[in-house]
Amino acid sequence: MNYDQRFLELGHEIPRATPSVPNGCNFELYRQVGDVLYLSGNGPFWGEDIPAEFIGKLGESVTPTQGYNAARLTAINLLLTLREAVQTLDNVAQIVSVDGLVNCTPDFTNQSFVINGCSDLLVNIFGEEGRHTRKASGTNALAFGICVEISLMARVRI
Amino acid sequence: MNYDQRFLELGHEIPRATPSVPNGCNFELYRQVGDVLYLSGNGPFWGEDIPAEFIGKLGESVTPTQGYNAARLTAINLLLTLREAVQTLDNVAQIVSVDGLVNCTPDFTNQSFVINGCSDLLVNIFGEEGRHTRKASGTNALAFGICVEISLMARVRI
Amino acid sequence: MNYDQRFLELGHEIPRATPSVPNGCNFELYRQVGDVLYLSGNGPFWGEDIPAEFIGKLGESVTPTQGYNAARLTAINLLLTLREAVQTLDNVAQIVSVDGLVNCTPDFTNQSFVINGCSDLLVNIFGEEGRHTRKASGTNALAFGICVEISLMARVRI
Repeated sequence: MNYDQRFLELGHEIPRATPSVPNGCNFELYRQVGDVLYLSGNGPFWGEDIPAEFIGKLGESVTPTQGYNAARLTAINLLLTLREAVQTLDNVAQIVSVDGLVNCTPDFTNQSFVINGCSDLLVNIFGEEGRHTRKASGTNALAFGICVEISLMARVRI
Repeated sequence: MNYDQRFLELGHEIPRATPSVPNGCNFELYRQVGDVLYLSGNGPFWGEDIPAEFIGKLGESVTPTQGYNAARLTAINLLLTLREAVQTLDNVAQIVSVDGLVNCTPDFTNQSFVINGCSDLLVNIFGEEGRHTRKASGTNALAFGICVEISLMARVRI
Repeated sequence: MNYDQRFLELGHEIPRATPSVPNGCNFELYRQVGDVLYLSGNGPFWGEDIPAEFIGKLGESVTPTQGYNAARLTAINLLLTLREAVQTLDNVAQIVSVDGLVNCTPDFTNQSFVINGCSDLLVNIFGEEGRHTRKASGTNALAFGICVEISLMARVRI
């Protein structure tokens, strides 16, 4: 178990600013019930900014590879939140589920490839314990125009 | 802890008829596992009716303020269900998560503001224990044409 | 409790091949936390194929009855997965929740009827313990163009 070390090796891929709740919003980034941690939906934010290539719809202005990278950045933001919640990713026992939404045109059908950007990263870091159940569906619109929104549930050790 | 009293002070904002499952549908409004209560998706119903201003899409016929009010009414319906499940809202230990869907046009990006109608009410009533994790995304269509659908998960004391 | 027998009586309605994770995807069909089993989103697959009438959108090429049947086949696939996870459906204690997405046009409002195809089957097999909480919403696009995607959570005995 050196999940935290593997995460930190992502280096410059990790935004310096941890995710925060948008201004004027009354919700939390995580909540724990027993040993299960629930995370709010997150997106391809870079601190408080959104890289321009991650705004828009798959099937229109965003390519599948850009979508994949957006899902990867979203996973990193989710892991930053998870880390804040349990101090180190070594306290994660299992990634249980991932709920991924892809902002897309009605004819786009490759949601699986896009959300793999998140799933692949989770398995790279947590190995067998990173393998999760998943929903990966399309949607016609997301907040701020982000191209993906992903939430996550994990079992933790503290 | 006087959650129930604070809820009842909403007075005329509370529909007299508690939510019910639509005719011909084989599902339940809530189910409990251990101390966690899962609620079905609900909407801006007024008993068995839907106020006309809450039918339609954000970005089209429904304004953000109407959407916010629809999310507030939906929260009240969810709390009516929660109350039926555990007798009094004083038995609620924590609102864990809220899953909000906004019926909207593809260019609408203010899902956060709309679902705040639900989140703000929950925090007004439950204070710190009302702060929840959240998903707030768009969708192109909802049952009956309602402009928002929200489900909820709560930890309860019985 | 003869859930498993009732399921097997569906006979030729049950695909011979159990559901599998799409090629190149790093996720699992189920994950258990305590006595709760989480299932990934599934669809109207027939083994590795998708019957042509289950590809498309409600309100366009797919009729409500076809959508209902697609939700029923999806439920069968979910039960095949559940059965693989806990050996026999007699180990299912309760179906807790169903999350159903209907691929549809913006003006389609009968998501409830479509997802009943899943709910009705669950109640037919599990009786009172098959009654679940439910979300049934629309979406503009789903992976592979399938007309419904449904995930499920169940309490199990092992």
